[in-house]
Amino acid sequence: MEGIMTEIPRSHPRYKSLALREKLVEGFKQGIVVPQGLIAHGRGEMFDYLLGEKTTKEARIASRAAAALLLKAKRPVLSVNGNVAALCPESIVELAAATKARIEVGLFHRMDMRVTKVQKILEDRGAKDVLGFLPDARIPGLEHMRGLCSKEGISSADVVLIPLEDGDRAEALTKMGKTTIAIDLNPMSRTARTATVTIVDEVTRAIPELVKNVEDLADDRNAAKLALSKYDRDENLALVRARMSRNLETFLKR
Amino acid sequence: MEGIMTEIPRSHPRYKSLALREKLVEGFKQGIVVPQGLIAHGRGEMFDYLLGEKTTKEARIASRAAAALLLKAKRPVLSVNGNVAALCPESIVELAAATKARIEVGLFHRMDMRVTKVQKILEDRGAKDVLGFLPDARIPGLEHMRGLCSKEGISSADVVLIPLEDGDRAEALTKMGKTTIAIDLNPMSRTARTATVTIVDEVTRAIPELVKNVEDLADDRNAAKLALSKYDRDENLALVRARMSRNLETFLKR
Repeated sequence: MEGIMTEIPRSHPRYKSLALREKLVEGFKQGIVVPQGLIAHGRGEMFDYLLGEKTTKEARIASRAAAALLLKAKRPVLSVNGNVAALCPESIVELAAATKARIEVGLFHRMDMRVTKVQKILEDRGAKDVLGFLPDARIPGLEHMRGLCSKEGISSADVVLIPLEDGDRAEALTKMGKTTIAIDLNPMSRTARTATVTIVDEVTRAIPELVKNVEDLADDRNAAKLALSKYDRDENLALVRARMSRNLETFLKR
Repeated sequence: MEGIMTEIPRSHPRYKSLALREKLVEGFKQGIVVPQGLIAHGRGEMFDYLLGEKTTKEARIASRAAAALLLKAKRPVLSVNGNVAALCPESIVELAAATKARIEVGLFHRMDMRVTKVQKILEDRGAKDVLGFLPDARIPGLEHMRGLCSKEGISSADVVLIPLEDGDRAEALTKMGKTTIAIDLNPMSRTARTATVTIVDEVTRAIPELVKNVEDLADDRNAAKLALSKYDRDENLALVRARMSRNLETFLKR
């Protein structure tokens, strides 16, 4: 259980999962990811293992609803933390372009240096005007450093994408009246149970899936409406738990 | 999901889990724990969450069998890695005293400096003659650095305690004919399915529980025999998975 080597054979049954882990450790060495972010990733890995390390039907349904919300939004914002920046900066930039959303860096363990590094990673991939370095607004109900945000960004957003978000922040955004889209592998987390739409999927699979759905629904208002009406968060989360529960019972039989 | 503050209120429902996490991050800052060890801990946290963060009946049954094996052993060895040393050095030293076992440092990512640090932590808590710094034997079938061990320790041991052990090493020890006792939160891991006895429990709860059981069975050969006869690894693991699976299905109802 203590760890896995840096050189992973492509033939390894869990190659993708191990490669992601290495990406995160790399981000950690660069100062983007904090130690707590590594632990949180481990928690996620476990849930992904229970999902079968693939995008499920439930995740696809949630993703279509999320795409519809992003397309309807007047001021969509994508909140990006250290883990997300380390794992899939390209897809975030693509999603921002597809949805005309602003990107805002939001760190749970905020340090100016880390904000700058995350911003640079995104801008190196073509992101424009990334927010977060000079916060000029607050999310009410959060401790000072945690509550910092941008007026132009999260503070005035109507729809906020919160991948791998902390429960306190997710709840505080909901209390502000924001529509939130969570990407979280734990179907029982407060974030998952608080967001307007929760995609239970691994973030490097979830964001490209979201980009595809945004493209598919962009010119089809009826399909977007249908996607929203087909999604029920609590039902979706219950189905995900049932799926994980089944996998947990049967895994040894593989 | 990105992390949790260093100052955790005692009233927090998951205080113990968060305090352990901080202990591990502390060990990481001291150079005892590697980044991969943090991720592995996260995976464990998740399974512990599914266990209900308590020592289950299945774990108690496994622990009594493990205690019986340690008491019967002629050359018991406790293998200690970075995570274990960061989390519960005192209990390891206690267990070594109670079972007259040698302690051997076994690191997945071996570096002399880390071995020395782990050794010092244990010796500061009263451990005597900790092995591992000058390995003079090998575990067959493992890549060079991974296979290093001590003649006086693991190499000639009959019973080896392997808390939070990697699957390759656990399998290699079994192939050497060792009796192994794993402590692992993942009931599906290769380590869990390979060891002679597997205790599915969080290590800081499992080691003190093991010390208690060693004390209880020390003067009672019949009770020790009974403990062994009552334990069936695969049945025990299946019951643990069923328990986790139930918890996963019902958690939202809490």
